[in-house]
Amino acid sequence: MSREIASKTPIEPGRRPSRVVIARVRPEVDGGRFPIKRVIGEEVEVSADIFADGHEVLSALLLHRHESAAGWDEIPMVELGNDRWQASFRVSAQGHQLYTLQAWIDPFLSWRRDLLKRVEAGQQTAVDVLSGADLIVQAAELASGAEAAELAECAKALRREASSALAAAVARALDDRIAALAAKHANRAAGTLYERELRVVVDRERARFSTWYEMFPRSASPEPGRYGTFRDVIARLPYVADMGFDVLYLPPIHPIGCASRKGKNNVTQSRDHDVGSPWAIGSRDGGHKAIDPQLGTFEDFDALVEAARDRGLEIALDIAYQCSPDHPWVKEHPEWFRIRPDGTVQYAENPPKKYEDIVPLNFDTGPWRELWEELKGVVEFWIGHGVRIFRVDNPHTKPFAFWEWLISSVKREFPDVLFLSEAFTRPNVMYELAKRGFTQSYTYFAWRNTHWDLTQYFRELTRTGVREFFRPNLWPNTPDILTEYLQFGGRPAFMARLVLAATLGSSYGIYGPAFELCENRPLRSSSEEYLDSEKYEVRHWDLERPDSLREFIGRVNRIRRENAALQSNDRLEFHPVDNDQLLVYSKTSEDGGSVILVAVNLNPYQRHSGWIELSPESLGVPARQAFQVHDLLTGARYFWQGSRHFIELDPAVAPAHIFRVRRRVRTERDFDYFL
Amino acid sequence: MSREIASKTPIEPGRRPSRVVIARVRPEVDGGRFPIKRVIGEEVEVSADIFADGHEVLSALLLHRHESAAGWDEIPMVELGNDRWQASFRVSAQGHQLYTLQAWIDPFLSWRRDLLKRVEAGQQTAVDVLSGADLIVQAAELASGAEAAELAECAKALRREASSALAAAVARALDDRIAALAAKHANRAAGTLYERELRVVVDRERARFSTWYEMFPRSASPEPGRYGTFRDVIARLPYVADMGFDVLYLPPIHPIGCASRKGKNNVTQSRDHDVGSPWAIGSRDGGHKAIDPQLGTFEDFDALVEAARDRGLEIALDIAYQCSPDHPWVKEHPEWFRIRPDGTVQYAENPPKKYEDIVPLNFDTGPWRELWEELKGVVEFWIGHGVRIFRVDNPHTKPFAFWEWLISSVKREFPDVLFLSEAFTRPNVMYELAKRGFTQSYTYFAWRNTHWDLTQYFRELTRTGVREFFRPNLWPNTPDILTEYLQFGGRPAFMARLVLAATLGSSYGIYGPAFELCENRPLRSSSEEYLDSEKYEVRHWDLERPDSLREFIGRVNRIRRENAALQSNDRLEFHPVDNDQLLVYSKTSEDGGSVILVAVNLNPYQRHSGWIELSPESLGVPARQAFQVHDLLTGARYFWQGSRHFIELDPAVAPAHIFRVRRRVRTERDFDYFL
Repeated sequence: MSREIASKTPIEPGRRPSRVVIARVRPEVDGGRFPIKRVIGEEVEVSADIFADGHEVLSALLLHRHESAAGWDEIPMVELGNDRWQASFRVSAQGHQLYTLQAWIDPFLSWRRDLLKRVEAGQQTAVDVLSGADLIVQAAELASGAEAAELAECAKALRREASSALAAAVARALDDRIAALAAKHANRAAGTLYERELRVVVDRERARFSTWYEMFPRSASPEPGRYGTFRDVIARLPYVADMGFDVLYLPPIHPIGCASRKGKNNVTQSRDHDVGSPWAIGSRDGGHKAIDPQLGTFEDFDALVEAARDRGLEIALDIAYQCSPDHPWVKEHPEWFRIRPDGTVQYAENPPKKYEDIVPLNFDTGPWRELWEELKGVVEFWIGHGVRIFRVDNPHTKPFAFWEWLISSVKREFPDVLFLSEAFTRPNVMYELAKRGFTQSYTYFAWRNTHWDLTQYFRELTRTGVREFFRPNLWPNTPDILTEYLQFGGRPAFMARLVLAATLGSSYGIYGPAFELCENRPLRSSSEEYLDSEKYEVRHWDLERPDSLREFIGRVNRIRRENAALQSNDRLEFHPVDNDQLLVYSKTSEDGGSVILVAVNLNPYQRHSGWIELSPESLGVPARQAFQVHDLLTGARYFWQGSRHFIELDPAVAPAHIFRVRRRVRTERDFDYFL
Repeated sequence: MSREIASKTPIEPGRRPSRVVIARVRPEVDGGRFPIKRVIGEEVEVSADIFADGHEVLSALLLHRHESAAGWDEIPMVELGNDRWQASFRVSAQGHQLYTLQAWIDPFLSWRRDLLKRVEAGQQTAVDVLSGADLIVQAAELASGAEAAELAECAKALRREASSALAAAVARALDDRIAALAAKHANRAAGTLYERELRVVVDRERARFSTWYEMFPRSASPEPGRYGTFRDVIARLPYVADMGFDVLYLPPIHPIGCASRKGKNNVTQSRDHDVGSPWAIGSRDGGHKAIDPQLGTFEDFDALVEAARDRGLEIALDIAYQCSPDHPWVKEHPEWFRIRPDGTVQYAENPPKKYEDIVPLNFDTGPWRELWEELKGVVEFWIGHGVRIFRVDNPHTKPFAFWEWLISSVKREFPDVLFLSEAFTRPNVMYELAKRGFTQSYTYFAWRNTHWDLTQYFRELTRTGVREFFRPNLWPNTPDILTEYLQFGGRPAFMARLVLAATLGSSYGIYGPAFELCENRPLRSSSEEYLDSEKYEVRHWDLERPDSLREFIGRVNRIRRENAALQSNDRLEFHPVDNDQLLVYSKTSEDGGSVILVAVNLNPYQRHSGWIELSPESLGVPARQAFQVHDLLTGARYFWQGSRHFIELDPAVAPAHIFRVRRRVRTERDFDYFL
């Protein structure tokens, strides 16, 4: 355990400490211990308190470089006032971008500022001009070539003119080019280099903007009763792609254990034809690097990855580091498990509950390195089969350090690999996993249904330091989560939750076809488990049902693709509305060109109306100008002006508006249109 | 410049990383770079987010020790919920106290919690008891002596009873003493020791609670026109002590320069009898280690320090690191100054303003170490004459690192020395100086006059992280600051500002006799300088004037001494009132035994009344109980009940109440009285 001992003697022998302080750098996660996250093309806006004793002029630089580059790019920082400085850079390549700050006292610029004041006050300046000449000589010594010569020449002229032609000397000393040259060659070494190099993990765009569809391959057969295969999933791809998804996530596809196999609806005694839970990984047919033979072969799987790619879909696999008692590792590596005093392998439990179809791995085992390497090998194995996205099951029950090591090791070689953390636990733990490297994270979204809950939570996610490292992926349902809201709210509840997920989050996902078919029967009252859950049995879904939300979902996802505002969470703003059953918010693209305004009726049972408090300026519309809101769900267009606007939403018709905000543009021929 | 490189390989060869995270430790200033501050006897309440993966039971310790102690004291931390843990310790000796945290996963306590759940669910437990026995054996191996034997014996009995007498075994396994012993000998090494040792600078009580009086010794003569002496100051001590002050601060007492000496009212041409500014330090009579001969001798000074001590007063000296052009250093060490191209020594300036009676020291000079050592020698010299409090003039124009070095060096040898920072500049700079070591700091108090300003500012000072390192010392006036509020508000303004300073701040001071005599004539309109300022001339004050605030100040300072609530800023709370011309706040002592409620009419011109929203509980009074508020300024007592209370304050009579809140106490004989 390395321990940082706070310095007790701030002055080192022989070196004068810098007078400049650089502090409270933003963004910076836990004092630089963890990187921030961006995708290619995004901006990193860096600010810091930079100050010194006295009243001299400071200069500051933002330094940044890709880890693969040798030298720093330098960006001058600008003072915002009250010692706060700012600059920004854009990231352009996957991997790690580094940044830090440098600041120093600029003697020439300080002198120049004072000279200007003296000139304004009509003071004698000959000696001051000579002081300036001395400073220019110092800069010349740090410069080289033509610039050094130019500075030296200027100093010489100043010394000559100081006594004979003071006005000319002053004009020469105040020349902008001289100021720029002298500042360029200021003695930075006497300044401060920020004590930390901070990091940005740069991902491809899908890390920020992704639309997920989860389905069980074994339920993909068009024939009721038959176990679905990868070939059936290939046939299902057009259905998924037409709805506008770009990630198709499959629960574990490995051989399923037989020992203590769970029956339908999670009963502990299974019957012969029960198919077991895909999360009970491993049987005599193999473990995490094998495929459930009923789903198909590696050839089939590779064909699926290929066919999906052709449709603009990426296959995401489930990484669930746990075993069925039949997993080959249990026999080959009993040292990777906990053995009970009676010699049996410890099964999973949350006393008094027992999960006897699962044995957890012991990450604390003596030969932990071998185990960790093997687990990393699992990820690398599927990368070898073209997979670049992994949804990680229950990462919060494995050591943080394991994930930090695994994700950073994998991404060093394959920077395009993305990891989604499926941790539903306390905020500290979920945030820690994101800091340790997970690209995206599940959230509490499924249980945030009220105006207050949604507003608070999404402000925390998008307006605080959390946004630097935690990328939310919003799921209105999962195979484990059928919320009360969906159980009781009917089709309007599904529609409202879909709109919220798809517009509050630049990444979201649904578990289908349960979602689009509005499946809402719980295992029992006050349970969030599905009745006849696909986790324990093969289901057949009637995808052509007329009440399917398939069309609606396709429309929402098309809106997401066509409006940049919805592809980031950075500029999410909630707007006051006088009815708490309504939620109103807007998103704006970085360049301001795309503005989306969403209004959702959170009550799936009743029509609600209200007045929104919303200035045109907050939507990028000039003050006192009328604007158009164009409902991309229905096609309806409304003209709004001023800052109070009426909306009414009937859940039986449509529980939400997704407005594109259109500003008036005057054309050359004097026609107006709305952009 | 040492640079911290963020770790890229979180796992070190051969060592399994700890699973426990310790983060967001409070208090911690700038990641532990700077110490927090306390006085002897105060508490340090430490909290942190402490968590691990999984669901096991954690244990955590707060470790602390005085820098002089070899081993840590251990205090068990308590979980507050949501991963937040807390514990506290008290500091008992001057110097540095260190603290850090340790946390680990406790396997036995985890097992015990699960066993309890199993027993409650009526599950078979024989194998579980054997698992527990294994854990007890592990604890026994880390224990020694009788405790090791007791644990080993217990494990043996459990193994014996597991198969034959399960109920007895379970009872034995759940025994509290076994839990305590096993927890005591848990394997902490597998846990986390927080990466930083944090520091507390512990001062004597005066660092927190002090009452300052500033006066010019040369104006202390009882005879008009005569230059006052230290002997005159000795004669003035009863006057100052009777008003209840405990620190008597003198502007610089050194020889005053003649070159470019300023005349009365700061005119640049002085006349022969002009006495000059005490801050123009140094003449042929000596510099920072000499005494202005007109004030007296070292013998006189030592007598003053001694006489003051006898009256409960400490002498505070002014440390102003700047020189008159006549200062001996200018000749002896021209290298400590900036020399202009014409060979003259650079005087102080803020272009276009020039301060030609002052030459600043060049802290950046080549031989900076010699200069710094000499300046430290000045402090040590006066320490040798019994001075333990220094008010530092304009520290923000000298390098931060200089102060950090000087203060830490001096305090290492003399931990009872206190430094007051006279920096009136931007917040970052003022806070940085406090972080670097200043014991107390001047504030913006003088310019905070409205309800909103005072509330905001004192919340920042007392309710945020600022309180850990910045101890405010509130001055309604100084020789440089005669605020507009005092210039125009008359005697009520002086009274209101005195009450605010004395009750909002546990440390405050006034510049007298100007303050108690309500001197309010500015040099000119819209200037904050005094007319006929003592900075440039000897003044004679009529201390016996009937309108003097001397009695009032004495009463307020007695209230401060007698009511512990006013001796700290830790529990300052503002209470809503429906008239913004009124400010109402309370302070409570740490033990709750002393509660002071203050109401001030901020408008010195008009009577104001209003309703205070104030629940009895917020004053430590049980709900629905009446209580007494006893105005310690007038002696009046009122009975209040409920949570709305009326007050009215006429500035012509008294602009403030200082209430002691008295709770009803029922005595043995059934009389009520108010404590």
